[in-house]
Amino acid sequence: MTSAPSIQPRFLPRRDDLGVVAVGFSGGQTKAGVDAAPMALIEAGIIQQLEEDLEYKVTYDGQVHNFSEILPAEDPPYRNMKQPKFCSAVTKEVSEQVYKYAKDGKLVLTLGGDHSIAIGTISGTARAIRERFSRELAVIWVDAHADINTPETSESGNIHGMPVAFLTGLATEDRPEVFGWLEPHHRLSTTKLVYIGLRDIDKGEKKILKEHGIKAFSMHDIDRHGIGKVMDMALGWIGRDTPIHLSFDVDALDPMWAPSTGTPVRGGLTLREGDFIAECVAETGSLIALDLVEVNPSLDELGASDTVRAGCSIVRCALGDTLL
Amino acid sequence: MTSAPSIQPRFLPRRDDLGVVAVGFSGGQTKAGVDAAPMALIEAGIIQQLEEDLEYKVTYDGQVHNFSEILPAEDPPYRNMKQPKFCSAVTKEVSEQVYKYAKDGKLVLTLGGDHSIAIGTISGTARAIRERFSRELAVIWVDAHADINTPETSESGNIHGMPVAFLTGLATEDRPEVFGWLEPHHRLSTTKLVYIGLRDIDKGEKKILKEHGIKAFSMHDIDRHGIGKVMDMALGWIGRDTPIHLSFDVDALDPMWAPSTGTPVRGGLTLREGDFIAECVAETGSLIALDLVEVNPSLDELGASDTVRAGCSIVRCALGDTLL
Amino acid sequence: MTSAPSIQPRFLPRRDDLGVVAVGFSGGQTKAGVDAAPMALIEAGIIQQLEEDLEYKVTYDGQVHNFSEILPAEDPPYRNMKQPKFCSAVTKEVSEQVYKYAKDGKLVLTLGGDHSIAIGTISGTARAIRERFSRELAVIWVDAHADINTPETSESGNIHGMPVAFLTGLATEDRPEVFGWLEPHHRLSTTKLVYIGLRDIDKGEKKILKEHGIKAFSMHDIDRHGIGKVMDMALGWIGRDTPIHLSFDVDALDPMWAPSTGTPVRGGLTLREGDFIAECVAETGSLIALDLVEVNPSLDELGASDTVRAGCSIVRCALGDTLL
Ligand SMILES: [Mn+2]
Ligand SMILES: [Mn+2]
Ligand SMILES: [Mn+2]
Ligand SMILES: [Mn+2]
Ligand SMILES: [Mn+2]
Ligand SMILES: [Mn+2]
Repeated sequence: MTSAPSIQPRFLPRRDDLGVVAVGFSGGQTKAGVDAAPMALIEAGIIQQLEEDLEYKVTYDGQVHNFSEILPAEDPPYRNMKQPKFCSAVTKEVSEQVYKYAKDGKLVLTLGGDHSIAIGTISGTARAIRERFSRELAVIWVDAHADINTPETSESGNIHGMPVAFLTGLATEDRPEVFGWLEPHHRLSTTKLVYIGLRDIDKGEKKILKEHGIKAFSMHDIDRHGIGKVMDMALGWIGRDTPIHLSFDVDALDPMWAPSTGTPVRGGLTLREGDFIAECVAETGSLIALDLVEVNPSLDELGASDTVRAGCSIVRCALGDTLL
Repeated sequence: MTSAPSIQPRFLPRRDDLGVVAVGFSGGQTKAGVDAAPMALIEAGIIQQLEEDLEYKVTYDGQVHNFSEILPAEDPPYRNMKQPKFCSAVTKEVSEQVYKYAKDGKLVLTLGGDHSIAIGTISGTARAIRERFSRELAVIWVDAHADINTPETSESGNIHGMPVAFLTGLATEDRPEVFGWLEPHHRLSTTKLVYIGLRDIDKGEKKILKEHGIKAFSMHDIDRHGIGKVMDMALGWIGRDTPIHLSFDVDALDPMWAPSTGTPVRGGLTLREGDFIAECVAETGSLIALDLVEVNPSLDELGASDTVRAGCSIVRCALGDTLL
Repeated sequence: MTSAPSIQPRFLPRRDDLGVVAVGFSGGQTKAGVDAAPMALIEAGIIQQLEEDLEYKVTYDGQVHNFSEILPAEDPPYRNMKQPKFCSAVTKEVSEQVYKYAKDGKLVLTLGGDHSIAIGTISGTARAIRERFSRELAVIWVDAHADINTPETSESGNIHGMPVAFLTGLATEDRPEVFGWLEPHHRLSTTKLVYIGLRDIDKGEKKILKEHGIKAFSMHDIDRHGIGKVMDMALGWIGRDTPIHLSFDVDALDPMWAPSTGTPVRGGLTLREGDFIAECVAETGSLIALDLVEVNPSLDELGASDTVRAGCSIVRCALGDTLL
């Protein structure tokens, strides 16, 4: 059905050089199962589809990393964060792996895992893009949630609700074993961040979004303008000369299409809208990395295969698959 | 998640002064159960959400009125209408209660009950707005149906299909015990009425809509223009200087999201479109009353909680809840 | 609910003269059951609705043709085609029946059957329109698939994936018993063909669509522009002076609304979008024939009544039913 994408990448030396990182990590939240997502996506054939249908040359170590070897002996809550040391250590490792691929000019696909891992993926690409182009990257964060709580505004203490705060420097910490390893070259500018799909924002987050003038397209905006116009506006905000890291939380989709996720929220994107977002990002030629996170095959088991299929579809679309 | 709305009301002295009327009435149609809707909505937390999240000061007598005390000893069909006296007596009482709240400058929320109760709610607000501002109000009627049959054009004789005819004076009756109590100050002008969501209109109704040039946006219009543009057109028709009474029949939503209702019709609004309509009306600052009707928790019991949740969501959105 | 359409047809002498052909044929693919669709549609009341609600005068021989009388004694694959002789013989008969109705100025409704039967229906109307107006007709092909494989590009050998190739002359064959009966007056020009709803296109088909510059609106286009704008563009491409044959494959709809079909593909049209397409074609006044194909009531039996209802709704909308 599909064939090699015809779009020439703007920030990658080769069209078909893809690095895959499989992060079987669930420590950023409390529901078991999201660590099984990379294997479910791979068993559903995602890597094979990328190689055979979209003609990528895939670099992948063949392992879903669960990072048990760096699980701290003790990891008490700190500043309200649950498992702070483990999350910090895992995301630091992910950051280094993603950095290596991105620095090498590879397109990077990371299969999560919960959304806390984006602290690793985005810090890794931000650093590589700074080194390769002396510029900042943009992030399109597709999610029902803003994930921009600081440890202090968070009610749950789950770090998967905080990655954007740490990446943008709205949350900081000196202790190196609790995200103190994040340096200026790892950071994302709030002006380079665009949200799509928001519909469940905490009070503290609303305040942060307003105060920092962060660009956000909620479901209300999608209903008002249509997803076509919203993507025009989102990509127009970013501009054509900026590398894009797409971080896609599967809970952005409506539970009707993606029920198997830790924090589903009704009133979400249709399957078609999810694919459309990914296709539009692919068309820019500016994509340098993609995260697909929060698939949890053990939740709503009846809907697990639908959710996995939706995830595979988003990955294929973002990586250049087209209908025509 | 939510916080006090920031919109300043244009026709109410206080932002947060809300009167709630709970009408457990099912006599405008023949399926038992719609009288249980107010309690289901309240048990789902709607009043608490309005108080705690949206910071309303709620006036509510704590009672779901079933009006058994005014049930007539006999109530034979009259001019084809079923239960004419009971419907007339109940809507007259509702009209007086709603009038009192609206006259006092309260925003009025009425939880139905079948849609016949709108004879009471709208006649009550129409009178209060005339007295407070010497002007007519506008009604946005969100529904799969037009509910504008006269007793003579109706095939079923159910009064919940006739409220708009009585309110606009297209149907009249002298006998005070059968809606003869409706006076000129209770009436709604056909030029101030806008329909949204129509998709199941009787032949006689089609004729009435055409002859009177009544503004109606069917599902076809929503597909053609998108709900964003339709709301622009609907609110543009009403204008910024007119108080709005929003009468929302939950059967406007597609049965996929709101199956538990007496006369479901496929091809309806999505959950998102329903919320969007309510949000857009809230944004005008012109809302002075809201009816939420035709939730019937005893129909399609599996879908009852979805339907109740959808109803609560529409109420919250119309009363100022926002995603961002 | 419905009433006689008010649109004056541009290429038919009478508004209400309808010829119905019921083709219980499944030989263009391998799943049994699609031959039962005409009876299911008729039992659901489609003909009665057209007569009573839309006030058509229906010419129908009262028979669902299964063509068992012309089933060849042997019918081995030829040029990769399965059941080539049977498909050829059936579509030739259908072509003649449809031609007779169309030549007589009747609007023609064909109830399939699999989509291979369009070789018959479109060749029949193409010939009649050439004779009546000395001009070519346009075809709007609503489908998840392009059905434009040649015998050589097809992987399955199922002829229901090839009708457009034979109709446009991209596939040809001299043997009269294998579509050699198709003559120039039967043909459709690739410039007069418009696709809507595509989302599962074979590699060979993609190449054909590109090389011949065939107008196609995929689901991506519908997401980008909205169905309203897409219909404007599709009908603009055809122009107002061209008779239209609408060939509607029910698998264009998302499986959520039409699951009972041989090759369902996720991410399809909503029920509302399907009806909207049909309504827009009806509004042109240029419709001269309609095919409704690929309903298979024996697949996904739970969803069969939904699928049949969706089919009936599309037929009614294309034949002039309106919401308002
Ligand atoms: Mn997230
Ligand atoms: Mn999320
Ligand atoms: Mn109603
Ligand atoms: Mn209704
Ligand atoms: Mn087809
Ligand atoms: Mn098809």
